[in-house]
Formats: sequence, structure tokens, C-alpha cells
Amino acid sequence: MANDNAQTIVQQYHRAWTSGDIDTAMDLVADDIACRAPGGDLHGKEAYRGFIGGFAPMLTGIGDIAEFVDGDRVALFYYPQTAATSTTPAAEFFTIEDGKIAQSVLIFDRPSYGPPQQA
Amino acid sequence: MANDNAQTIVQQYHRAWTSGDIDTAMDLVADDIACRAPGGDLHGKEAYRGFIGGFAPMLTGIGDIAEFVDGDRVALFYYPQTAATSTTPAAEFFTIEDGKIAQSVLIFDRPSYGPPQQA
Repeated sequence: MANDNAQTIVQQYHRAWTSGDIDTAMDLVADDIACRAPGGDLHGKEAYRGFIGGFAPMLTGIGDIAEFVDGDRVALFYYPQTAATSTTPAAEFFTIEDGKIAQSVLIFDRPSYGPPQQA
Repeated sequence: MANDNAQTIVQQYHRAWTSGDIDTAMDLVADDIACRAPGGDLHGKEAYRGFIGGFAPMLTGIGDIAEFVDGDRVALFYYPQTAATSTTPAAEFFTIEDGKIAQSVLIFDRPSYGPPQQA
């Protein structure tokens, strides 16, 4: 199966949500996903979908930085480009279980994605 | 040499600065390091030393999350524990050149390390 490889799963997930296809992305996420996100933890797919689905429409592009794979664990570093910034990196550390994303640690600096600072 | 391996260099660097030994840490950093940090880019070892040296005294502990290695590239995910938080992750993506840390992408959510929010 194309789907049983952690790297492939994360790549499919990443491509889907960053192109606005939240349904396809969520097919690759476990129902009981645990995500540590800036500002708080998210438990379960519905909470996670709300978080990712809320951010995706703000994306104007993606800049790749690096990808790491170690067994069932995958790390991505990339630039989620928005109207506010194209050079603020984000990192995600995924753990895959039973062909789905079961855990995620998502790291970015919230102020860098906010409105431009007053001079 | 113990020093010629990217993983070893990053581990030595990480152990040094997180235990407050900034001098040893900076011996493993290239003079012309380029670091992308929250809020702005840092150029050169003196700027980088100022940034890391300013944060290190606030550390009360470190919680490991994950380490990835791919040739000259190393990624760390960990909890830099402070009085404000012990569960806010940080990620660092290091590129090693000529036995030193030449590039770093450092990601954390600044508000999570600030004073506790008013209820």
C-alpha cells in the first residue's frame, strides 16, 4: 500500500492541507490524535480539524526547509507563507500509528503570523 | 575525532548551552553562523551568543522530545523549561559545516515563554 509508510503519509497529509483539501488531510489523521499546538493542546480529530481548517485559508504558499524520517516518526520544517510573512518557519513532529497521524507537536511563533508591527 | 560528527557536535552544543556553559557551546558554532530566530535573523557568533546567553539563565530544565539526523543536518525537538512553562516545545534545525554549526533555524512560540496570562 502506498499508505503504510510514515514518510508517505506525512507527505500526503502535508500536501493536502496546504492545498486546502482538509478532507483528504483528515483521512490521514487518527480519531484520537493528540496535538501539542502553540497556546494549548488539541485532543481528537474534530478539534484538530478546526485548528488546521482555520489556518489553511490564510496560506498563500509553502516554502520547504527540511524533512527528517526515523521509522514511524517524521519531522517537517517549512515556511507557511501568509499575507503577514513568508520567512517565519514552522516545525511539525509527527508520530504515525496504524497508518495514521496519531501524535503531532506543532511549533511556530504566533506573533510572527500576526498583523505587521507598528513602526 | 569525536568532533567530526554532526550528531555529536549538536549533542555537545545542546548539552553545553542548556547547562549554562556558553563558552563551550560557542566553540562549536561557526564565526559566521546564520540563525533564523523568532522575531528576526541573527548574523555572526557574537549576535548568536548574545541571544543564547540571554536565554540560558532562565532555563530550569530540559525535556527531550526527539532527535533526527540526516548527514550534516540535525533536528532537535525539546522542552526548554522555565519558570513560565515546562510543556512548550522548541525545535532547532542545524546544518553543520567544517565541524561547526553554520546554520540554525530556531522555532518556539514567544508568548508561551512570557509571564502567565491573567485569568
